[in-house]
Amino acid sequence: MKLSKMIGDRFKERPANCLIDSHAFMVRGGYIKNVANGIYSQFPPMKRISQKIENIIRDEMDKLEGQEVLFPVVLPGSLWEESGRYESVGSELLRFTDRTGSKMVLGMTHEEAAVQLVREYANSYAKYPFMIYQIQTKFRDEARPRAGLIRVREFTMKDAYSFHTSQEDLEQYYAKVYDAYARIFARCGIPEVAIVASDSGMMGGSISHEYMLLTPAGEDSIATCPECGYSANVEAAASIIQNENKIPLADMEEVATPGTGTIEELCDFLNIPAENTCKAVVYQRNADDSYIVAFIRGDLDINETKLTKAVGEAIHPAVITDDCELTAGFIGPVGLSDKITVLFDHSVKGIDYLVTGANKPDAHYQGFNVERDYGKVEYFDLAKIIEGGICPNCGKPVIQISRGIEVGNIFQLGTKYSKAMNFTYTDENGESQYPIMGCYGIGVGRMAASICEVRHDDYGPIWPITIAPWQVHLCCLRSDDVECKAKADALYETLQNKGIEVIYDDRKVRPGAMFADADLLGVPVRVVVSPRNLTENVVEISTRDKAIDKQKIPVNDTITEIEKIIKKLTDDIYKNVK
Amino acid sequence: MKLSKMIGDRFKERPANCLIDSHAFMVRGGYIKNVANGIYSQFPPMKRISQKIENIIRDEMDKLEGQEVLFPVVLPGSLWEESGRYESVGSELLRFTDRTGSKMVLGMTHEEAAVQLVREYANSYAKYPFMIYQIQTKFRDEARPRAGLIRVREFTMKDAYSFHTSQEDLEQYYAKVYDAYARIFARCGIPEVAIVASDSGMMGGSISHEYMLLTPAGEDSIATCPECGYSANVEAAASIIQNENKIPLADMEEVATPGTGTIEELCDFLNIPAENTCKAVVYQRNADDSYIVAFIRGDLDINETKLTKAVGEAIHPAVITDDCELTAGFIGPVGLSDKITVLFDHSVKGIDYLVTGANKPDAHYQGFNVERDYGKVEYFDLAKIIEGGICPNCGKPVIQISRGIEVGNIFQLGTKYSKAMNFTYTDENGESQYPIMGCYGIGVGRMAASICEVRHDDYGPIWPITIAPWQVHLCCLRSDDVECKAKADALYETLQNKGIEVIYDDRKVRPGAMFADADLLGVPVRVVVSPRNLTENVVEISTRDKAIDKQKIPVNDTITEIEKIIKKLTDDIYKNVK
Repeated sequence: MKLSKMIGDRFKERPANCLIDSHAFMVRGGYIKNVANGIYSQFPPMKRISQKIENIIRDEMDKLEGQEVLFPVVLPGSLWEESGRYESVGSELLRFTDRTGSKMVLGMTHEEAAVQLVREYANSYAKYPFMIYQIQTKFRDEARPRAGLIRVREFTMKDAYSFHTSQEDLEQYYAKVYDAYARIFARCGIPEVAIVASDSGMMGGSISHEYMLLTPAGEDSIATCPECGYSANVEAAASIIQNENKIPLADMEEVATPGTGTIEELCDFLNIPAENTCKAVVYQRNADDSYIVAFIRGDLDINETKLTKAVGEAIHPAVITDDCELTAGFIGPVGLSDKITVLFDHSVKGIDYLVTGANKPDAHYQGFNVERDYGKVEYFDLAKIIEGGICPNCGKPVIQISRGIEVGNIFQLGTKYSKAMNFTYTDENGESQYPIMGCYGIGVGRMAASICEVRHDDYGPIWPITIAPWQVHLCCLRSDDVECKAKADALYETLQNKGIEVIYDDRKVRPGAMFADADLLGVPVRVVVSPRNLTENVVEISTRDKAIDKQKIPVNDTITEIEKIIKKLTDDIYKNVK
Repeated sequence: MKLSKMIGDRFKERPANCLIDSHAFMVRGGYIKNVANGIYSQFPPMKRISQKIENIIRDEMDKLEGQEVLFPVVLPGSLWEESGRYESVGSELLRFTDRTGSKMVLGMTHEEAAVQLVREYANSYAKYPFMIYQIQTKFRDEARPRAGLIRVREFTMKDAYSFHTSQEDLEQYYAKVYDAYARIFARCGIPEVAIVASDSGMMGGSISHEYMLLTPAGEDSIATCPECGYSANVEAAASIIQNENKIPLADMEEVATPGTGTIEELCDFLNIPAENTCKAVVYQRNADDSYIVAFIRGDLDINETKLTKAVGEAIHPAVITDDCELTAGFIGPVGLSDKITVLFDHSVKGIDYLVTGANKPDAHYQGFNVERDYGKVEYFDLAKIIEGGICPNCGKPVIQISRGIEVGNIFQLGTKYSKAMNFTYTDENGESQYPIMGCYGIGVGRMAASICEVRHDDYGPIWPITIAPWQVHLCCLRSDDVECKAKADALYETLQNKGIEVIYDDRKVRPGAMFADADLLGVPVRVVVSPRNLTENVVEISTRDKAIDKQKIPVNDTITEIEKIIKKLTDDIYKNVK
């Protein structure tokens, strides 16, 4: 491909709306173009990167005996009604009606479609196990698309579904996918991807893992233990609390606390530590807007995913209206009516002396003791795990919290979908059974953006050679010089004939502009042909990662040297593939 | 791939709802599964065929210096408002709103998205010409999806868009695409695809061509002239009429014609030929339901596409209500109010004596003469060309009408989209100009189904080797026979190692069932390993097209023979590629 012909502009200034580097480089480098909020078109370099990632994924899926299929983007609502997700999933599921008035949805995952495809076929135990996958466009109507290709509404995703006749068989297969995923990330040049336990969210099922690429630009938080190697999404990490009783038991009494609507103001006013406060956090059920108050130790925060799980249905942060009984800033468990659902986090268990709201303005109760003053309660794990918190695995107080981008996930779905959709097979004994399912996803565009996020310098992406849009970036420094142009043209021709993927900058532009564009395209091997070098009968070779910098190679050795470097860069990646 | 592991069922009975053979075979052979009206999932064989077709298309597009990009499936309505198509396209454009209430559409073609992608980049004449293409999912909310993958709502399509600075340059490029398309169809095994002139329909532009695969199962009608080679879609073929005056001029007079609501009844009653009747055909504008009456010679039919073009906006066949002035069966031009739009087809021009409706029940005018009794009118070409009609090219009355499936189309769009979307570039003289566009489409699934429609026997598809799901179908006739199984396993292994695509039937089923399944999968080369043959130390090789039938090949020569046959089948296809 000649750069003079390639569509798309590259430019110097970082767009103001790009908060993270990968987004900025993909816009500046002519990779993507915004079409609508969270919806992008792909220019040729991005399309090429996507295809390479897809081919790596396809190869690993085929090695797992995966069978590639294709599901529709537009699915009938009735299929999602079968699984119950037509109702249970929020407005990220885009619902509409077709010209006949039939309910339709845009597929955001394809569990229902997978079951629909195989439920007549897979009617006997002898057909199991099997795995099907597709690589296709999905749509998720995100409330807040952000960060370029990291969180979009439309995206290309590989989604795979496996079907089993026993939990053991699922687990064995799950373990294979677990390893295949590690290979995929390593082959794409990011072997450092961390595997963490996760919450299954709307997918259902119990055991699941996320593949996290750690970077400050990530929107997920991951708890890791440097002592035992434990790692989990903070949404799934158990928050272990050990309370000390620093203030002795006392009678509960109301105390005037004017203007202390926050824990900090309250602690200052009463001169008590936040660990001795019982903080109220208010949510509402999506279904009927009824209130839920979660009580938690004042120095901790509620994790919404855990709270959702405890409530058992979709919720949102509350809007406290004037006509409800809640007094914002002064809410406590004592005296709340039955209309309010009250939940307690583990963190307030066993504390003798707490301060909590008195459910009227400017007043708290001090000396509050949950079990004495409120009664026997069930405690839930609702708290976010914190930096320095106790590791749920080894018990040491050394938890570290990092940011990461979820680049893949795998789920043990169990029989959630087969049961809901009445999908059965006949086992060895002639009995009807529900198949056990697993599902496995990787977003292609997000993967590309994530790689860019952790593999770039100040000037652009440093693409791993396995997914780079081209292997070689050939620069003809003086297209107006006949000999220089002829030599570069010949090199371009030879490289193409050798099957080496090359982008050829044959434009009449200043060297500075040429190199800036090359940096933005991030191609691993750069070859510069210039009149000055040709007087010495050499070309200059560099690698984008600067390991090789302007190395002079005799013209006649150029191809051999390029092939050697490509092999080395590829070998370096495959070293990390297990 | 082992057939014992492959998902999908094959079955004997033709499903009742399959009206054409390709639909029946694709359902019976486990290629596709219906998910909703006009929406299908693809099983592995279909996915493999699609990928092969896509790769052939991609290769030919790349040879035309096409740049592969990706546009979104979900597009903002605002982009379609820019081009005017948000309003002008009918309900086949699926419109909906996202969670924020923004208007969105599902892309059915991507002219708008193509302009949006390049309109900043292509701001100077020096950037032209260029072509971009994508292979992606499209959605068209068809009123009547039918015939399996021939007319669906969701489909994979290659759509390409070229951009030029002059009509000559567009025409030169268009000619190249014209040839590339012929190569694509030849490489897919259907070199007989006919190229016909077409109506551009909602795409806009003037010159366009359709690639038609002639088959009685087709839903398009094509007019061809065996004398001069002219061919066109009947929607685009000019209807040439030469009228003879068989009945002399007479005064116009009302005549009672009780119960003659049809042309046939009228002709019988008055004993006149249909050529002397002036038939009324009634439509309504989609926009306001106002009536349009087209008058045409009684023996001819209106072509809706031509009428739409003459009216200049979307129309539909009329519902004649009681409160309107039209008297169904007795409508004539004389006496209609201004509210009704009246159009005359060329076919009633110059006929001295016509019979037409008197606009009241059971009455006609006889002796009607358009220009004398109605006035000077503009005549339009509104009639369907007919079998035996006059060729618009050579003038001979030998037109033949055939049925065909449109497997591709190419359009010269001109500046329709660049003007509407304010897309300009600066020319050599610093003047602002609108780029001239072409667009070029091929539906992947429809192509596969069309090939099946013309390449099958009573037992299943006969896939051309270039697009067949596998090259070789290996049957182990007795999986319970140790030697037979071992030999077949070894052959499977060797074929795979040689890079030959093989589907291996290792199931314990009767030979009849095994061969029926092989026929349904339509793989070009069949190799049968059986205990009986092994006693002679041979295997049996056949081709799906029966050119080779149960040829006995020594076991040791099997691979060589298979490679030879694959080469021959491939060469046979490439013979037709120009």
